[in-house]
Amino acid sequence: MTQEFSFAVHAVDGAARAGAITMPRGTIRTPAFMPVGTAGTVKAMYPDQVRAQGADVVLSNTYHLMLRPGAERIAALGGLHQFMNWPHPILTDSGGFQVMSLAKLRKISERGVVFQSHIDGARHELTPERSMEIQRLLGSDIQMQFDECVRLPCSDEEAERAMRLSLRWGERSRQAFGVQPGRAIFAIVQGGAVKPLRVESARALAAMDFPGYAIGGLAVGEPQAVMLDMIETVEPHLPRDKPRYLMGVGTPADLLESVMRGVDMFDCVMPTRAGRHGMVFSRFGRLNLRNARFAEDRRPIDAASHCPAARDYARAYWHHLVKSGEILAMMGLTAVNLAYYQDLMAGMRRAIAERRLGEFAAEVKAGWAAGESGESEGLN
Amino acid sequence: MTQEFSFAVHAVDGAARAGAITMPRGTIRTPAFMPVGTAGTVKAMYPDQVRAQGADVVLSNTYHLMLRPGAERIAALGGLHQFMNWPHPILTDSGGFQVMSLAKLRKISERGVVFQSHIDGARHELTPERSMEIQRLLGSDIQMQFDECVRLPCSDEEAERAMRLSLRWGERSRQAFGVQPGRAIFAIVQGGAVKPLRVESARALAAMDFPGYAIGGLAVGEPQAVMLDMIETVEPHLPRDKPRYLMGVGTPADLLESVMRGVDMFDCVMPTRAGRHGMVFSRFGRLNLRNARFAEDRRPIDAASHCPAARDYARAYWHHLVKSGEILAMMGLTAVNLAYYQDLMAGMRRAIAERRLGEFAAEVKAGWAAGESGESEGLN
Repeated sequence: MTQEFSFAVHAVDGAARAGAITMPRGTIRTPAFMPVGTAGTVKAMYPDQVRAQGADVVLSNTYHLMLRPGAERIAALGGLHQFMNWPHPILTDSGGFQVMSLAKLRKISERGVVFQSHIDGARHELTPERSMEIQRLLGSDIQMQFDECVRLPCSDEEAERAMRLSLRWGERSRQAFGVQPGRAIFAIVQGGAVKPLRVESARALAAMDFPGYAIGGLAVGEPQAVMLDMIETVEPHLPRDKPRYLMGVGTPADLLESVMRGVDMFDCVMPTRAGRHGMVFSRFGRLNLRNARFAEDRRPIDAASHCPAARDYARAYWHHLVKSGEILAMMGLTAVNLAYYQDLMAGMRRAIAERRLGEFAAEVKAGWAAGESGESEGLN
Repeated sequence: MTQEFSFAVHAVDGAARAGAITMPRGTIRTPAFMPVGTAGTVKAMYPDQVRAQGADVVLSNTYHLMLRPGAERIAALGGLHQFMNWPHPILTDSGGFQVMSLAKLRKISERGVVFQSHIDGARHELTPERSMEIQRLLGSDIQMQFDECVRLPCSDEEAERAMRLSLRWGERSRQAFGVQPGRAIFAIVQGGAVKPLRVESARALAAMDFPGYAIGGLAVGEPQAVMLDMIETVEPHLPRDKPRYLMGVGTPADLLESVMRGVDMFDCVMPTRAGRHGMVFSRFGRLNLRNARFAEDRRPIDAASHCPAARDYARAYWHHLVKSGEILAMMGLTAVNLAYYQDLMAGMRRAIAERRLGEFAAEVKAGWAAGESGESEGLN
């Protein structure tokens, strides 16, 4: 296995790319979906299940792990890979997004962010330097620059201020990252929904020559069209030979549309969170297993799936477990969703290699629209 | 595979027996521990995991399943085995115990029990005939007679009244069970903590010639010595060629002591419930993973276990997951406990075959007492 971080594009189809990130802990086939393991666990999944479904990398959250159990403690225990029994690549975010969405009493300055823990109210500080130190302590393979992520909609002035601050923090993050053979730091493009700001951010970061580039600050409530417009705006200004990661996205439809616009990596809590609430994504569209229409449905969720939970139990059983609040419902439906996401990514990788991504996307969308016996509850 | 229900004792060691129940859906190696699948799921476990750990049979609860999703619905969906994806033997209780412990506004008469559901307050009735009908609809392999189980301590008069009522209900249950090839109905010895009542109950039921015998109404709060005394009181009056099932028991120590007194089968929520609350049973005694002493403990729960959750993760990780309320903690620690219970039963079966159960029990208890580096938090 290589000792260096590298990325290669093996096939292109329009703006879409299929390739691989290679690093000492393994290869990430792109386009890739990264299951989210917030607190050092992909919720309701054993790590060997996550791997067997086809995940090459998982994401974990700096904010959650710094608060509990603490980055220094994880380092003392041998690092995050050993802690969570996941020997494959791990990407960590910088903590910036969670500070915005979860922490209390935030105070942002040039230096960083002071905030109160949502767990116990304790005061903490995150700076670019501390975020990178935490990610290094965790042993993360792909570390994200510290940034400020604003909610949409916001004023252009606010988006500009946060984007420029994130650029300066990006430079400080890269300095703090230093040299870590086999690992990489990714920059994060910001700029809200303001195209000139997005272009300026992408160009400035591209000039700094990071090993990878993320598009941040999207999937925060804006319509899909706005998100896709921002991707199209940014994409031409990102280096072609570096991986591109759309943070926090998204639905299966978001993944299809974004890959077609040149994105290589994704993470999202949607498949895991939806699974814990009885909602599954499938070839037939979304199914809400809580719905009474499934109470006597003998069919599996998807007889053609390679996921045992999708294949070996009746929908009526999942309906019963969801209604009864049983843990197995959260386990099984999370597994169904992550398996579907990984299958969708694998399908896109094959389609790009065969230069038929447009056709593949049309087939997938037709399946969602057709549903199965009319019981689909929405597109994916 | 045989089409008849049968039981054979293959080895004895003192009062202890090792043998097998054979029936169309499989063989139950005895002494056997039956994981509890209350609502059609062994909580936080996939059925193939339960099987792989060595379980030959699971228990499911008539009370819970009659209320949700309903016995007729499960029958229409192909029966409980298909519903919960467990093709191996299933034992169902009669509902009597849960009516006592969970339902509201119970009214007991000669006919049966009228009660309100703890879920929605709806009025239901359970009689010996309806209990057996439900168990038949579920497709249960071992069905329990309907009985009245009193709480201990209770007056001798109350214990006698409930015991005699249970005898009459036993006869009605057997009538209602009828002829079901390959399946069996077990009688339940009652009588509280009153020895003459226990003896009378056992003798009367033995005279009715049931395919199996349970000892009910124990493990309801009395000291272990009282429970063991009742087992010793009842055991000589139970047919030697029929399986004996001690209901709702117990701790690992209870299992050891009861097997040495001639019990063949057990069920208990303890390993599953304890696992969901961060408590594990191990060769080193009980460990409460919530305890701060485990926060930096790099050791696995038991490096020699064949259970991945016991072997492949640090105690510090489980501590973190328990403190964080993560579902994986409930999954993994439930698996650890059920694996330990199944290993303990397998060890007892081997020891009986080798006529060294006393020695085996002493070794196991010494392991609990010694703990590991002094961190055991109690005997098992």
